Amino acid sequence: MIIIMDLDATPDEIREVEQEIERVGFRPFMNPGVERKVIAVLGEVDAHKADLIEHFSNMPGVARVDLISDLWKLASRSYHPEGSIVKVRDVIIGGNEITVAAGPCSVEDEGHLLEIAEAIKQSGAKILRGGAFKPRTSPYSFQGLGEKGLKMLARVRDKVGLPIVTEVIDTHDVRLVTDYADILQIGARNMQNFALLKKVGSGVRPVLLKRGPAAKVKDLLMSAEYIMAEGNQNVILCERGITTFEDSTRNTTDINALPVLKRWTHLPVMVDPSHATGDWRMVGAVARAAVAAGADGLLIEVHNDPPHAKSDGPQSLKPEKFAALMNQLRRIAEAVDRKL
Amino acid sequence: MIIIMDLDATPDEIREVEQEIERVGFRPFMNPGVERKVIAVLGEVDAHKADLIEHFSNMPGVARVDLISDLWKLASRSYHPEGSIVKVRDVIIGGNEITVAAGPCSVEDEGHLLEIAEAIKQSGAKILRGGAFKPRTSPYSFQGLGEKGLKMLARVRDKVGLPIVTEVIDTHDVRLVTDYADILQIGARNMQNFALLKKVGSGVRPVLLKRGPAAKVKDLLMSAEYIMAEGNQNVILCERGITTFEDSTRNTTDINALPVLKRWTHLPVMVDPSHATGDWRMVGAVARAAVAAGADGLLIEVHNDPPHAKSDGPQSLKPEKFAALMNQLRRIAEAVDRKL
Amino acid sequence: MIIIMDLDATPDEIREVEQEIERVGFRPFMNPGVERKVIAVLGEVDAHKADLIEHFSNMPGVARVDLISDLWKLASRSYHPEGSIVKVRDVIIGGNEITVAAGPCSVEDEGHLLEIAEAIKQSGAKILRGGAFKPRTSPYSFQGLGEKGLKMLARVRDKVGLPIVTEVIDTHDVRLVTDYADILQIGARNMQNFALLKKVGSGVRPVLLKRGPAAKVKDLLMSAEYIMAEGNQNVILCERGITTFEDSTRNTTDINALPVLKRWTHLPVMVDPSHATGDWRMVGAVARAAVAAGADGLLIEVHNDPPHAKSDGPQSLKPEKFAALMNQLRRIAEAVDRKL
Amino acid sequence: MIIIMDLDATPDEIREVEQEIERVGFRPFMNPGVERKVIAVLGEVDAHKADLIEHFSNMPGVARVDLISDLWKLASRSYHPEGSIVKVRDVIIGGNEITVAAGPCSVEDEGHLLEIAEAIKQSGAKILRGGAFKPRTSPYSFQGLGEKGLKMLARVRDKVGLPIVTEVIDTHDVRLVTDYADILQIGARNMQNFALLKKVGSGVRPVLLKRGPAAKVKDLLMSAEYIMAEGNQNVILCERGITTFEDSTRNTTDINALPVLKRWTHLPVMVDPSHATGDWRMVGAVARAAVAAGADGLLIEVHNDPPHAKSDGPQSLKPEKFAALMNQLRRIAEAVDRKL
Repeated sequence: MIIIMDLDATPDEIREVEQEIERVGFRPFMNPGVERKVIAVLGEVDAHKADLIEHFSNMPGVARVDLISDLWKLASRSYHPEGSIVKVRDVIIGGNEITVAAGPCSVEDEGHLLEIAEAIKQSGAKILRGGAFKPRTSPYSFQGLGEKGLKMLARVRDKVGLPIVTEVIDTHDVRLVTDYADILQIGARNMQNFALLKKVGSGVRPVLLKRGPAAKVKDLLMSAEYIMAEGNQNVILCERGITTFEDSTRNTTDINALPVLKRWTHLPVMVDPSHATGDWRMVGAVARAAVAAGADGLLIEVHNDPPHAKSDGPQSLKPEKFAALMNQLRRIAEAVDRKL
Repeated sequence: MIIIMDLDATPDEIREVEQEIERVGFRPFMNPGVERKVIAVLGEVDAHKADLIEHFSNMPGVARVDLISDLWKLASRSYHPEGSIVKVRDVIIGGNEITVAAGPCSVEDEGHLLEIAEAIKQSGAKILRGGAFKPRTSPYSFQGLGEKGLKMLARVRDKVGLPIVTEVIDTHDVRLVTDYADILQIGARNMQNFALLKKVGSGVRPVLLKRGPAAKVKDLLMSAEYIMAEGNQNVILCERGITTFEDSTRNTTDINALPVLKRWTHLPVMVDPSHATGDWRMVGAVARAAVAAGADGLLIEVHNDPPHAKSDGPQSLKPEKFAALMNQLRRIAEAVDRKL
Repeated sequence: MIIIMDLDATPDEIREVEQEIERVGFRPFMNPGVERKVIAVLGEVDAHKADLIEHFSNMPGVARVDLISDLWKLASRSYHPEGSIVKVRDVIIGGNEITVAAGPCSVEDEGHLLEIAEAIKQSGAKILRGGAFKPRTSPYSFQGLGEKGLKMLARVRDKVGLPIVTEVIDTHDVRLVTDYADILQIGARNMQNFALLKKVGSGVRPVLLKRGPAAKVKDLLMSAEYIMAEGNQNVILCERGITTFEDSTRNTTDINALPVLKRWTHLPVMVDPSHATGDWRMVGAVARAAVAAGADGLLIEVHNDPPHAKSDGPQSLKPEKFAALMNQLRRIAEAVDRKL
Repeated sequence: MIIIMDLDATPDEIREVEQEIERVGFRPFMNPGVERKVIAVLGEVDAHKADLIEHFSNMPGVARVDLISDLWKLASRSYHPEGSIVKVRDVIIGGNEITVAAGPCSVEDEGHLLEIAEAIKQSGAKILRGGAFKPRTSPYSFQGLGEKGLKMLARVRDKVGLPIVTEVIDTHDVRLVTDYADILQIGARNMQNFALLKKVGSGVRPVLLKRGPAAKVKDLLMSAEYIMAEGNQNVILCERGITTFEDSTRNTTDINALPVLKRWTHLPVMVDPSHATGDWRMVGAVARAAVAAGADGLLIEVHNDPPHAKSDGPQSLKPEKFAALMNQLRRIAEAVDRKL
């Protein structure tokens, strides 16, 4: 349920509505920074909806009370009809421009990282991605450099001037990763690690939330809702392929999810064609498709020596191939009236 | 295994190689209409490959003997490195131009069909689609008009000048449908109806082969091989969505399959965003994605009165929305150096 | 919709109801051989249901009119609350006894077939299975012996005294296979080959309908309905594994489907653990599970020389392993108050 | 790689082998409590395997060096050919007896919990299950009572005498849950929460590891390996249904996984038919199937007032239905030469 206040509602009227929401057993949440104040009523309102609508409709300063029929509320387009924009330093995600984040799967060597960062920046990428904490299927695989990797990322950011996105895999590490990263990534395997979602939801950094390989679009939005319900509205969704019977690629890119998400939520949506295909030879076609289908951004793995990458080499593009792809993507972006 | 003949191999030498293939227990198949003659050796050659390679390499007129490691042979890009082109009347599928087939799910009324055909032609569609034999999940649903529907399609073709593609669902009907249709469609549910594949494989009409909802890309190519092994090389593949756990759309478009198919086969590939999404509101985004990812054509449902369509209304575009989509697709096509 | 007649309804009253059903545009179908006559009204009745119920309720001899909310009607337990029994020669499928059909994937050699048939009979199998027409993914794989294989099956049946079940894959062959077989099998890939379903539905032989690898339980029941709507009520369903992301076995046995089917339909249900696992080492555990979960029968591949079988060797049990399994199954059957 | 020591290898010889493993860059792990000492060499040994085998084979006290080709090592049956047994207070999981854990999805009320615990104990359950921390798809759903719930569980355990299993969903809570629980449950959504796996792996409580809904059997074993590589060998696996296209039940029980797991690992395997079906009417059939297929135990939801359960009511059995099911399961257990 959302309570839409009058345009000229006073701060006192707003406060009273919020207090009344709490008094009757729910939680108020007010969308910050928009002209018209809209207060979401969080909790299981369904059983009492008729009473609640009447009750709040009659309070001073209230323009209208609406039910949001979606299971997700703060993430719903009904609650926030305009597309959201997430700002990270001077980069904007969710506007007319398509934002590309690129970089190695895992941070391994500062010299290489710097080289890659400079190359991708020159090709038009706006964000540097790289993993310091790596969730790997096998406990005997390379698990990332941890804080040492975060420091490398931060130093390269300062030199090259690209904000960084990196994954956090444990509630214990959220503070640490927040100290270095500009965007916190929640990986696909942790999409329903609700403790972690709540933790980053109460934090200050924008969150890139990757869809789990067996998660429905609805589940992805519910996980976004976990983050938003804690206060952090800066959530970027990321389609990275789902698990299906098809085995010619590592995952199946759910391209249908793009128009579905655009209808159901105001949050920006990125696509990760590298994980979604698992094969650098397929990355270009799927990246082009994502832009054509309405993605707000892409997350692409780039490595200057894929065969020796410590993880995900086969799906990484070399910098020169990435540069060529960016030129193709620029043309597709223009064909859908956007920029890159 | 394929036997590549010398450029100046004589007809006698070719005939002798073909006879020798038969003598040792396999089946020869010669790709028609290319300058350099290449003879495919069909059958289970693996157990004897070393002997066979040596045996045929030494025959007069033979330039080289190659194994094709793919399970599919005639459909493989190793056998036919250039992309194939299928010609239907004056329409080309598989060249630089992207070919759009459009029309109603099922043929219901000749007046409406004519209207739709004229509208889609004006928007740039090159082929008229429409079902006369409908494979429906329920025996109590509308099953199509049968021959009456075929006649309507043929009359509309003659008036409007668009070749027609329509489904055949039974070996008994292949001759009948061949009499009216320009392209025979094998529906997704019949992708592994091998009796039907063989029947259309020995026929003269190009075949549009739709991928089954649970068929791997490999299985689709094996089904194409069934058709081609009977002699008919004019096969067009069609991705129309696969069955997954995701339920926000009717099927999941396997966009990854486009670059995979482009590597594995020379056959042209179309995409059917109407069935792949099941929702007209998602058709545009997925159609744009398909063109950006390299599709050679699209199959789009258009109906002038979707709520009253006898089948698949919710996924059909109205003619004016189709026209708008074609304009968008034209721009995407240009962005990937193709035409529409 | 079903019309339940009075226990003492006269033949005239029944005939009048049937004629009235036709007059208002639907198709009557009367369940044969039950004491109380129940007439199914086939067609899309939903739009007119209130009127129809009132209309027929008032006719002489009518006890009650019920809607069947399931999409399937003749296959629904609402229409036929007792479990159905299918009789094949002196074998019963669907009663208290669990019926095992066993034999080779494909018929290859009459001597071997006879040996296998004698062995499985001694172990307690009641039906001999074997393929003469084989639907194979590759056109270059062994496609079965055709009529020659059917003749071998028939001769072995006559010697050993086990009725035979064998697959039919083309409408053209239905008459031929009917001449030899006791039960016609519709394979998984043809589950939605509606032309074939209608053909066997108008025939006289019981049909073993295998679930397609991507077919929902609902789709399986709709396919059964296709057969039954043509008149043939002797349908046996068969779960044989579905396509999922899991790759440690060839398919995933949907064991949940057993209690679901038992609620939704009166038709007997068999399980094919050989195809459902693709590995003889897993067949025993899944066969035991199937009996414990309520299967009415099993379809098990047995071959006396699995490594040299022309198809599906890896999933075939040797006769001695089959004998041991039958002893285990007998104990499970008793534990669920059934016999084998 | 594993190093099998001589039966009479001295402690010094063992220590030297362990030190040498570390010296060359790997991690030794010795299976505790078996007569013949076997030391696992953990890390990425593949690149150097020939050298390593020769190197260690020549050390004093070494009987043999074997590669384990499975990706999982400590969890592999090659490493530990006998089935493992996990002891929890006086309950054994993994022996000849089939162990049933039962109880409500979430702990809500101590009186009810006590009633349920007494009822299930009387029916033969050996472990009480109940959630205090609940991972829910929606942030607005009941999230469990937390520590208050743990205290209720512990008090009920003390009164009734059943050890308790309860879920832990955050690394922060592992210590707290360890203080109360006898077995820590890792839920399906956290199966690849590697930080959590490592945390419980370094702890002292047995771990019940539930398979993720999109996790392959191989992935489940790799997650078990994460726990075991930290030292904790007391891991119980749990099949609880996978995500597929089938929608007649909440998940699809992968019954095939039972024989597969029994070949690939020595760890005990339980099945949770409540989550695997999502419908109490299907629980019985699937529970029987699981026992017949070789499960070492079951996890069944029981609630004395399912319609008012705060979570998962529709899949909970009432105590009297649970009692009847236990009697059925006892008969199936005997039919496979086990006890319950």
